[in-house]
Amino acid sequence: MRVEIISIGDELLIGQTINTNASWIGQECSLLGIRIVQVTTISDEKELIKDAVDMAFTRSDLVLVTGGLGPTKDDITKHTLCEYFNTELEIHIPTLERIEAFFISRNRPMLDVNIRQAELPKSCTILDNRNGTAAGMWFDYEGKILISLPGVPYEMKGIMIEEVFPRLKAKFKLKALYHKTILTQGIGESFLAEQISDWENDVREQGLGLAYLPSPGMVKLRLTSYEGESRSEEIDRYFDQLIKRFPHYIFGTGDETLQGVVGQVLRDKHLTIGTVESCTGGALAHQIVSVSGASNYFQGSLITYSNELKGKLANVDEKIIDGFGAVSSEVVEQMARNGRDLLGVDVCLATSGVAGPEGGTNEKPVGLVWIGISTSDRTISKCFRFGDNRERNIQMTVLTALNLVRCEILGILFEKK
Amino acid sequence: MRVEIISIGDELLIGQTINTNASWIGQECSLLGIRIVQVTTISDEKELIKDAVDMAFTRSDLVLVTGGLGPTKDDITKHTLCEYFNTELEIHIPTLERIEAFFISRNRPMLDVNIRQAELPKSCTILDNRNGTAAGMWFDYEGKILISLPGVPYEMKGIMIEEVFPRLKAKFKLKALYHKTILTQGIGESFLAEQISDWENDVREQGLGLAYLPSPGMVKLRLTSYEGESRSEEIDRYFDQLIKRFPHYIFGTGDETLQGVVGQVLRDKHLTIGTVESCTGGALAHQIVSVSGASNYFQGSLITYSNELKGKLANVDEKIIDGFGAVSSEVVEQMARNGRDLLGVDVCLATSGVAGPEGGTNEKPVGLVWIGISTSDRTISKCFRFGDNRERNIQMTVLTALNLVRCEILGILFEKK
Repeated sequence: MRVEIISIGDELLIGQTINTNASWIGQECSLLGIRIVQVTTISDEKELIKDAVDMAFTRSDLVLVTGGLGPTKDDITKHTLCEYFNTELEIHIPTLERIEAFFISRNRPMLDVNIRQAELPKSCTILDNRNGTAAGMWFDYEGKILISLPGVPYEMKGIMIEEVFPRLKAKFKLKALYHKTILTQGIGESFLAEQISDWENDVREQGLGLAYLPSPGMVKLRLTSYEGESRSEEIDRYFDQLIKRFPHYIFGTGDETLQGVVGQVLRDKHLTIGTVESCTGGALAHQIVSVSGASNYFQGSLITYSNELKGKLANVDEKIIDGFGAVSSEVVEQMARNGRDLLGVDVCLATSGVAGPEGGTNEKPVGLVWIGISTSDRTISKCFRFGDNRERNIQMTVLTALNLVRCEILGILFEKK
Repeated sequence: MRVEIISIGDELLIGQTINTNASWIGQECSLLGIRIVQVTTISDEKELIKDAVDMAFTRSDLVLVTGGLGPTKDDITKHTLCEYFNTELEIHIPTLERIEAFFISRNRPMLDVNIRQAELPKSCTILDNRNGTAAGMWFDYEGKILISLPGVPYEMKGIMIEEVFPRLKAKFKLKALYHKTILTQGIGESFLAEQISDWENDVREQGLGLAYLPSPGMVKLRLTSYEGESRSEEIDRYFDQLIKRFPHYIFGTGDETLQGVVGQVLRDKHLTIGTVESCTGGALAHQIVSVSGASNYFQGSLITYSNELKGKLANVDEKIIDGFGAVSSEVVEQMARNGRDLLGVDVCLATSGVAGPEGGTNEKPVGLVWIGISTSDRTISKCFRFGDNRERNIQMTVLTALNLVRCEILGILFEKK
């Protein structure tokens, strides 16, 4: 099946918005064995949209259109598709009810423009949008399919996952690829590739596909079987080999998150956690709390950004700060140890570092971070050297701290690379 | 002048790489008054490339091609363009010398494949690439122009800035567009459109372009003058009208962020800030701290996620929690008021809500959030009803709290919609 994407929106052409929708769709489709042959980005103009659809239908069986479904005047996709498919708008009652419910649940009045979003082409199948007011539309037309989706990423993704992919799987015999992914933290892509090169040669010789998917602080490793699920056990065995060798780097599989894994470890061991944060400024706590049900183990945190509050809230010894500096092993260990008592938790993480871009010195440059952890067994600290970018340094610190607590609780020797 | 982009590369279609080149070119071109009418992303295949160029020449005067100029076998753009323009490759001596110098300066051996990168089409103008080995190519063809550039972003940008834009400025009388953007928080796109419909009619009648650019919790409004900067004052006047009417929604312009604006307001007024957070779990503090130099005003926070810590750390009266519940006006006001003292700050924000997806009741459903703020003047609280999604509820709470503190400090009546 040949599929292409038409992305509609001036904001994409003038570069105010990056077309992440197309890349997300490309990723998800390639996991399903669907090949995207072209992405066309055009302006919100009726004739351009029609021409692009015409051209797309000459090349492809399925055309995914994103954007131009909002309630404002510059959103014309719906009207254009009505003309193109020679149909007309009518109120779609279930959509109207859904929009009404959407506004009632948010306790906000519904406007005329919102009601008009329930006016949808007669000839299409409506695809529910649970995250917004612009419904998706599925047109069958002379053996081809056109699917129109809102441009807001989480609305588009919701409709793709809940409505489009299940229908495509049911309608077409998709050549089933089988993928499995393991997730690593604490080692860069090139180091990882070097350390697992023998394993990589093995899996490639066996005809499995291997992809490194790096993101800041993490590398995903994806194995693909082109013969579908029949090789799933083999893939599991290959991954088990890696997990045995690198338990400190490999924290999970598939869609797991590091904070989710840490949460499960804490639940399993009946432990509570808290944080005492300086450079991460609450980002670590926020990441822990982003997991639904975090209240089962997360109690709270002290964000001691100023040195004064390190003393006042976390009882860090002023002399220690003066002697070793706020970014030091001694200070993060006091923060972690005192945090356990003050927050009444079993495990406490502490962070202190130079997030940058200002505040670096020769001795303590931007990117230098200390992370401390205190449990009933012991209190330790580790030093890291991240980069120049403030947000990335904070993010790297958060991920590293989460992996550190995972290793510490599970008795895995933590290594850094 | 009508311009379009052809981006070549499988990695773009399967979503492994996001097409940031197209958005960068779009941004830079729109600043020069060059309109990008289409972006087409295709695979590294000869026939597809030729077809895409054919189509692009029917619509546009200038075609920018990125990608497919690397030294490996799957990079075929150069050969394809040779066929398309009916020319042949020859060694381009200045490029060969540049490549040699490039390898010498990096102390790396030059390979055959690198030498072949100096083989370039006879009929084109060569555009120097100072950041890599793949030269750019400028083809004049039947009154149209095709420019081929490497896909590596910093190489492409270098050639665009140093070679392409100066030539385009010299060759064409470029009509400069002028854009200005204002940023709103606390009102949805459709409400905003309704409230400013008279103003919108005005600006459109005057021939200005208006775009709504929504993102979670925020809507950007962009005005465009097609006659360049000459209408900048007029645009400022139009925006001033809006700012006067909606000072509570409009927090900034252009590339500003809400946390950056709040930081500047705090600096201007010589105020310090802290937070006492329940449902946001540190996300509010993290957002404040994401601004470089936040240590000038941010002191720290108490993350009192458990009810026990609301009492123990923030001195919230146990009876108040039992009587009104943790998600209540009374509790967030105590949290904010006590936080001011405990953190020693001028302004304290407090949050308590049902982030979801669990924990909702009929009386206090998922998405219900109380935000409190305490200053030397007063302590108040506001109730909000966000949606079903945990991460979004946290994000909406953070943005709303930041806008609330901006309004409170600036003496703007906060309204919610």
